[in-house]
Amino acid sequence: MRSVVVRNISRADPDVVKRLGALGVATVHEAYGRFGLMKPYMRPIWAGGEAAGTAVTVLAQPGDNWMIHVAVEQCRPGDMLVVGCTADNTDGMFGDLLATSLMARGVTGLIIDAGCRDVKSLKEMGFPAWSKAISAKGTVKATLGAVNVPVVCAGINVHPGDAVIADDDGVVVVGRGDAAEVAAKGEKRQADEQEKRRQLAAGVLGLDMYKMREALAKAGLVYIDELEAD
Amino acid sequence: MRSVVVRNISRADPDVVKRLGALGVATVHEAYGRFGLMKPYMRPIWAGGEAAGTAVTVLAQPGDNWMIHVAVEQCRPGDMLVVGCTADNTDGMFGDLLATSLMARGVTGLIIDAGCRDVKSLKEMGFPAWSKAISAKGTVKATLGAVNVPVVCAGINVHPGDAVIADDDGVVVVGRGDAAEVAAKGEKRQADEQEKRRQLAAGVLGLDMYKMREALAKAGLVYIDELEAD
Amino acid sequence: MRSVVVRNISRADPDVVKRLGALGVATVHEAYGRFGLMKPYMRPIWAGGEAAGTAVTVLAQPGDNWMIHVAVEQCRPGDMLVVGCTADNTDGMFGDLLATSLMARGVTGLIIDAGCRDVKSLKEMGFPAWSKAISAKGTVKATLGAVNVPVVCAGINVHPGDAVIADDDGVVVVGRGDAAEVAAKGEKRQADEQEKRRQLAAGVLGLDMYKMREALAKAGLVYIDELEAD
Amino acid sequence: MRSVVVRNISRADPDVVKRLGALGVATVHEAYGRFGLMKPYMRPIWAGGEAAGTAVTVLAQPGDNWMIHVAVEQCRPGDMLVVGCTADNTDGMFGDLLATSLMARGVTGLIIDAGCRDVKSLKEMGFPAWSKAISAKGTVKATLGAVNVPVVCAGINVHPGDAVIADDDGVVVVGRGDAAEVAAKGEKRQADEQEKRRQLAAGVLGLDMYKMREALAKAGLVYIDELEAD
Amino acid sequence: MRSVVVRNISRADPDVVKRLGALGVATVHEAYGRFGLMKPYMRPIWAGGEAAGTAVTVLAQPGDNWMIHVAVEQCRPGDMLVVGCTADNTDGMFGDLLATSLMARGVTGLIIDAGCRDVKSLKEMGFPAWSKAISAKGTVKATLGAVNVPVVCAGINVHPGDAVIADDDGVVVVGRGDAAEVAAKGEKRQADEQEKRRQLAAGVLGLDMYKMREALAKAGLVYIDELEAD
Amino acid sequence: MRSVVVRNISRADPDVVKRLGALGVATVHEAYGRFGLMKPYMRPIWAGGEAAGTAVTVLAQPGDNWMIHVAVEQCRPGDMLVVGCTADNTDGMFGDLLATSLMARGVTGLIIDAGCRDVKSLKEMGFPAWSKAISAKGTVKATLGAVNVPVVCAGINVHPGDAVIADDDGVVVVGRGDAAEVAAKGEKRQADEQEKRRQLAAGVLGLDMYKMREALAKAGLVYIDELEAD
Repeated sequence: MRSVVVRNISRADPDVVKRLGALGVATVHEAYGRFGLMKPYMRPIWAGGEAAGTAVTVLAQPGDNWMIHVAVEQCRPGDMLVVGCTADNTDGMFGDLLATSLMARGVTGLIIDAGCRDVKSLKEMGFPAWSKAISAKGTVKATLGAVNVPVVCAGINVHPGDAVIADDDGVVVVGRGDAAEVAAKGEKRQADEQEKRRQLAAGVLGLDMYKMREALAKAGLVYIDELEAD
Repeated sequence: MRSVVVRNISRADPDVVKRLGALGVATVHEAYGRFGLMKPYMRPIWAGGEAAGTAVTVLAQPGDNWMIHVAVEQCRPGDMLVVGCTADNTDGMFGDLLATSLMARGVTGLIIDAGCRDVKSLKEMGFPAWSKAISAKGTVKATLGAVNVPVVCAGINVHPGDAVIADDDGVVVVGRGDAAEVAAKGEKRQADEQEKRRQLAAGVLGLDMYKMREALAKAGLVYIDELEAD
Repeated sequence: MRSVVVRNISRADPDVVKRLGALGVATVHEAYGRFGLMKPYMRPIWAGGEAAGTAVTVLAQPGDNWMIHVAVEQCRPGDMLVVGCTADNTDGMFGDLLATSLMARGVTGLIIDAGCRDVKSLKEMGFPAWSKAISAKGTVKATLGAVNVPVVCAGINVHPGDAVIADDDGVVVVGRGDAAEVAAKGEKRQADEQEKRRQLAAGVLGLDMYKMREALAKAGLVYIDELEAD
Repeated sequence: MRSVVVRNISRADPDVVKRLGALGVATVHEAYGRFGLMKPYMRPIWAGGEAAGTAVTVLAQPGDNWMIHVAVEQCRPGDMLVVGCTADNTDGMFGDLLATSLMARGVTGLIIDAGCRDVKSLKEMGFPAWSKAISAKGTVKATLGAVNVPVVCAGINVHPGDAVIADDDGVVVVGRGDAAEVAAKGEKRQADEQEKRRQLAAGVLGLDMYKMREALAKAGLVYIDELEAD
Repeated sequence: MRSVVVRNISRADPDVVKRLGALGVATVHEAYGRFGLMKPYMRPIWAGGEAAGTAVTVLAQPGDNWMIHVAVEQCRPGDMLVVGCTADNTDGMFGDLLATSLMARGVTGLIIDAGCRDVKSLKEMGFPAWSKAISAKGTVKATLGAVNVPVVCAGINVHPGDAVIADDDGVVVVGRGDAAEVAAKGEKRQADEQEKRRQLAAGVLGLDMYKMREALAKAGLVYIDELEAD
Repeated sequence: MRSVVVRNISRADPDVVKRLGALGVATVHEAYGRFGLMKPYMRPIWAGGEAAGTAVTVLAQPGDNWMIHVAVEQCRPGDMLVVGCTADNTDGMFGDLLATSLMARGVTGLIIDAGCRDVKSLKEMGFPAWSKAISAKGTVKATLGAVNVPVVCAGINVHPGDAVIADDDGVVVVGRGDAAEVAAKGEKRQADEQEKRRQLAAGVLGLDMYKMREALAKAGLVYIDELEAD
């Protein structure tokens, strides 16, 4: 790893990112072929937070938030900060001062594969964040990392400029080049689901609506009246 | 394992199930001799959710929700859906479309030893669910399992028709044949606790109220004024 | 381990404890030289709870809350109960009856390296608690432990009378003899942060405010315009 | 749960159990339709241990091995002891004295969903055990459980008399009534695998041997020469 | 926490420590009233390693082994190095160069609540170590900690000079002032166990040898011939 | 994600890969600037296994080993198979039949972010593997993934053709373009360590050999004779 800060990155189209954000994580993940979802240990630090943005990436050393300070300068309105670590860590590498700085630059949220602190303040400020842990554990500023290089965060390789969508269901990352196609597929999927929801609410069974009965029988499913005694 | 769907099951008495639900998980678990409690990793997907019902059971393959679709047809008003997996899994096997279908059939809640998604929608719909994880990870419909056979869910062997009670404290399962007795014991316990609560609030010590002092002394507990230096 | 109850303990100054509580966990932990923080698996059982107090300590056997009943009698207004276990445990060793008793004695909160139950009631009562797990699992009263001896709780060695501060960010313990100095340092830190927050909100970069640019360059950080293809 | 000891249980045929043991866990699990496998946290306490037997089951309280002492008397030559707990536990509930007793009765091994100790002695004695943890943590003898009732152990519901097979790959449980059929299927599977192994060692590809190419193409798999730049 | 190195510490009697080592972890832990055992995630990095010594303690920052280098100078023949961290960490803070240095000073082993590397070399050198993880992850030398202050390691508060015993069953710490009494109790316990082992091997049941039958009946244990159908 | 198999990949120089293998994981990781190390949950399935090779990568669905069969055909002598999953999984996706096939093609080992089975056979065959779990859990062949695309495995983004080194300390991945430089640095480092080891064995302190004393004093480390009473 070289300790570099990349100044110019290509970002996903902000309008497309907004459309992806409106779809939500579950729909985007399905529309992306069930790809791009971070591990489920990534949770919102306050329930109900929602964010979408283009990734500014940070590779940080565990327990060291120096590179996050460096990354702030590289952020533009509509970005999200995505922080990966070189080793597992739960220290509170991000708090309300950094959030103040990010909000001043128009950043829409934070994704960090480590810990977060000042949870109450962040909620009051309305700054949404997704993290692996909540911890007040303070950090040092001692070792370099990198900004705007590809980073693995919670199992997903994130490139600078990728579209990042996060809500109560988790965090999904869509490659910059795939964002428009995924948004279109997701919107179609969402429209289809409205009709399905109406039918299911009216009592139509998914077994019939999805025409599953034949495939189930072919796979060998057997209906019996009662389970014989063991 | 045979891939069967059992159509006729005997259910715990719905009135008894309601009484158990009114007692809550902690009291029912104590009244059941401290038995039947699922592992504590089972958490409500939204705080404050409460449910009680008779179990319709599903044995599913990890990452495959085909059998949940099959199970919907077997549900009646007052049932709860209990889903176990053949291997550890956190995928989002259940979302708001399935919840819509279950609510149309009068199902009172979901217990799933895997992941759940569409958390925000489920909360808005008022559909309570307890799961091992929250994850948007999509699932396939490829491999058979079974419906209404005994399934192990979060460490408890659940039989179809068992009474299932769930709240913020977790999930407890009471065998169909034991439900009435447990409800009666729980109600007595609850009545006793009101009086205890009144005394404790008035400053009576549990040491005296439970008459523990003698047993503690007999077991060898010693009171000293100060801890000598180490 | 001897099974003792120590009746007389020296407590941190209650006014200092209140000042520490007003600062919050993250600030106190920093002011204490990044020391004294419990492991981040300790979480509030209901969001928004805050508490500060002087520690009455309990060493309990896993799944056995006998010593908690013993400890109640040793509590005074302004105390917090801190419970460590002799082995990892998630059983629900504490519920609303014990909380009623503690509130009657003016205790401000509970820290337990095990499970807690009756979460809904505790929230309604306004009694804050931090625990490793939420579990309805009932406990026995069979084996002795100790009260008001030093106990390890979530990775921190807590002495009776230490100052304990807890909020959404976690739990920090300050040695009785260090409390006044830490409070003073924390208050200075908090005052400094107000000015920093103002500057950051106005768009000043942390890189400039903290004068990091020289140190980063010296450590070898390189700015480049674009990342060459892999 | 009633605190009972069931004296008479029906056991799987010992000759069939031996045949299952000769097949090993992976083959038996496949022959059983990929069913009956305990969770992978169950590991041999010493590498290379292998055992097969009929289950004598114990439901124990966490940290309490009283019921294991009770169960010894119910064991016959060819049995294996299977211990489940009413709550998660890693205490060392089993050591070399209990193993001495079990070996004197012809028991072939131990499966315990908790901790084990005296690992060095157990290895020297040649007594194989599979557990969730290794821990010297001592246990009490204070609370009743049950012997020879169905118990959930590491995610599997085990009935007394079931066939239990364990080796370096884990632990699988075959229902007493299914054992003969599973043994026959497993032996056929094993014979088939010898021929497959011979072909694969000679360089035949699984793609061809299993005739997968058509299904892969139908599912949409595409071969390309090079990955275009990202 | 002050960054100090304490030069003079009182050590447990080396002859007593040797006697404790001969007893092994499980017996010492029982003789110490089931106290002093580290959490079971502490495992030997190579099976069969055994060590006993007097603790030289290190409080280290996660991912930073500077203080271990400092501690080497404070070690004498018969010491064991015990390393606790200020936050959870699995980095490989200890390898074969440090082990070479410790062996040159007569240190008998390492206990570290973090990661260890160079496992193959350490085994070849015959240097035993117990750790939370095995990891090649390199560390920095950037932040101070302390040497020979009390440290929490894997849940146990260790004082400099305490007796530390470690083998395949885990790690137990005996307070310096308690060591002689624990050794005597342990030796008595060990002698008793030889006779018990002889009886159990001859087929005497623990139920009879420990005279448990009456207590079991009093507690309500019931023997039945067969389990009625569910 | 597209379901592709990439046939032509550029591989790291096999001679360089052998040199990296001779250095071992810990040295390579340090020489690579403490970069490229997989998470420490990746453990050898049998102790003492060592392997180095060029990565053929597989992106598999959890519980589905279809793509591993596809990948075999793409392997050449000197390759290692690296398998990532789209979701957390511990199923036994790899066993001795696949190993037979890989050995016939000259593959040197397996890295899989999931489970492995047939551990005993793999050890007897001398085929080394590193995995997240050992599990006999069988898998299906139902859903496509990809071969020779970049995959995240245990926290590291692996490109086809990268150098992979694995031993008892873990698994490290070196980018194809960085391999030669890392090998040279590692060999220099190794030579330096021989001299350091000689000095340390002779009793020279690391404090002096690394000239740490001044930096420690500057950072504020204080030596005191005794710890005052608490």
